[in-house]
Amino acid sequence: MTSQTSWFETAVAELTDPLDQRVWSIIVSLFGDMAQDRGAQISGGALTRIIEPMGIKPEAIRVALHRLRKDGWIESDRIGRVSHHVLTEFGRTQSAAVTPRIYARGPAVDERWHLLIAEDGSGTQLLEEVMLSRDYTPIGRNVALGAGPIPDQTEGLLALEISPKRAPKWVQDRLCPHELRASCLTLLNAAERAAETRPKGWAPTPLQSATLRTLLVHRWRRVVLRQPDLPPAFFPPDWVGPACRDAVFRMLDTLPRPSSAVLNGTG
Amino acid sequence: MTSQTSWFETAVAELTDPLDQRVWSIIVSLFGDMAQDRGAQISGGALTRIIEPMGIKPEAIRVALHRLRKDGWIESDRIGRVSHHVLTEFGRTQSAAVTPRIYARGPAVDERWHLLIAEDGSGTQLLEEVMLSRDYTPIGRNVALGAGPIPDQTEGLLALEISPKRAPKWVQDRLCPHELRASCLTLLNAAERAAETRPKGWAPTPLQSATLRTLLVHRWRRVVLRQPDLPPAFFPPDWVGPACRDAVFRMLDTLPRPSSAVLNGTG
Repeated sequence: MTSQTSWFETAVAELTDPLDQRVWSIIVSLFGDMAQDRGAQISGGALTRIIEPMGIKPEAIRVALHRLRKDGWIESDRIGRVSHHVLTEFGRTQSAAVTPRIYARGPAVDERWHLLIAEDGSGTQLLEEVMLSRDYTPIGRNVALGAGPIPDQTEGLLALEISPKRAPKWVQDRLCPHELRASCLTLLNAAERAAETRPKGWAPTPLQSATLRTLLVHRWRRVVLRQPDLPPAFFPPDWVGPACRDAVFRMLDTLPRPSSAVLNGTG
Repeated sequence: MTSQTSWFETAVAELTDPLDQRVWSIIVSLFGDMAQDRGAQISGGALTRIIEPMGIKPEAIRVALHRLRKDGWIESDRIGRVSHHVLTEFGRTQSAAVTPRIYARGPAVDERWHLLIAEDGSGTQLLEEVMLSRDYTPIGRNVALGAGPIPDQTEGLLALEISPKRAPKWVQDRLCPHELRASCLTLLNAAERAAETRPKGWAPTPLQSATLRTLLVHRWRRVVLRQPDLPPAFFPPDWVGPACRDAVFRMLDTLPRPSSAVLNGTG
């Protein structure tokens, strides 16, 4: 085992989410990153070779695939001894919906924000209905924050354009909970440590690239999708989101995205 | 009885508040209008002559004066058979505090507005404390509207500058309740009817002027002090506040304010 192999193993251990090893979710991240195109297949063998280095057993992969088929995310077929998996139309749609946010190189910088305020009591239901169909961040039982200008239809709600300059701690804590800040910080630290120890000139095999990419995308996805794009004033002072995003993409950029064809042909 | 005398009587009947004839409050309006200066006295006789035409009995005036003395608004003394009443320092301060709003010829047009939003639950107490010491209009349990820019001290509250463009019905109803709109409309109608029927060239005696001024100021005061200066969007479409203000001041301007010396010397 060369020192380069062992860096890969160290990096995998570093980047493995200490809190969340839900295999089905890792597979979703993998397909979203490397097999999101219509008809892009990943063979059962490739899937195992990408995921096994994370310490996940083939049996756990089979269980996760079963669940993903049951939930309508993935379809599988088998020719002889070789199985192939593809995202269903539903799976592709779900994956495509979050791809722009996961892979955005910077936060969506909205200059305009607005509040919707519901009447105490009965009005909160009206607000909840609006929040079901549009992207709002609740600030309280009867107050929600939305990006962009005030929409045309806000019947029954007080809609006010705002330019937040500062926010009290409870707002920052509500919109950026401690657990999310901790996830973000540990991912930042992991990515930075892995980058620092990486031997000069180390080039990944397609499979190594796939494993590391999957880990990075999986963890970043769980940070970025739980963190609404907020006015800067709403982030707590210890929020390292931008640094974490930079570290994730700095590493992703050194890990060429292998095609599914290459992955299926390996091994 | 000339037709001019009878117009005065009709106008008094018209301008008498159908809902509120609290005599102590009428006396407060009278002092605020004609004897707010330090040391300005109103004799018991003048008070009776100004207020009796409203259909208020001398006994009711005595009861009201007793209450105002007990509450620290008024001091009375008596020389021989003549009693005199003056505002106390407390009474003058209270009166002076609302004089600018009552006599303003137009609404205070604030260009800047802000919201204070409290955290659900414990935060509402914080908001209530702020509202005790500063002039805020509650929009809900945890939201209050304030005029001007955001104050420096808003610790624990989300403070947002706003430019309200439109408001839903519940906000208009809350800030401008139906009863207040009705009071405003009936005062507008009364002032307009009185102005229309007024004989050309009719000139009031100082006492007549004092009676009509007291009625007008008393009723307008009860409208304007219950109506916060709000962003225009927050007023309901049937709000006649500006027209009412115009009608009140159009009539006040034709009723010279008699000095307390003149009033005390009459009769």
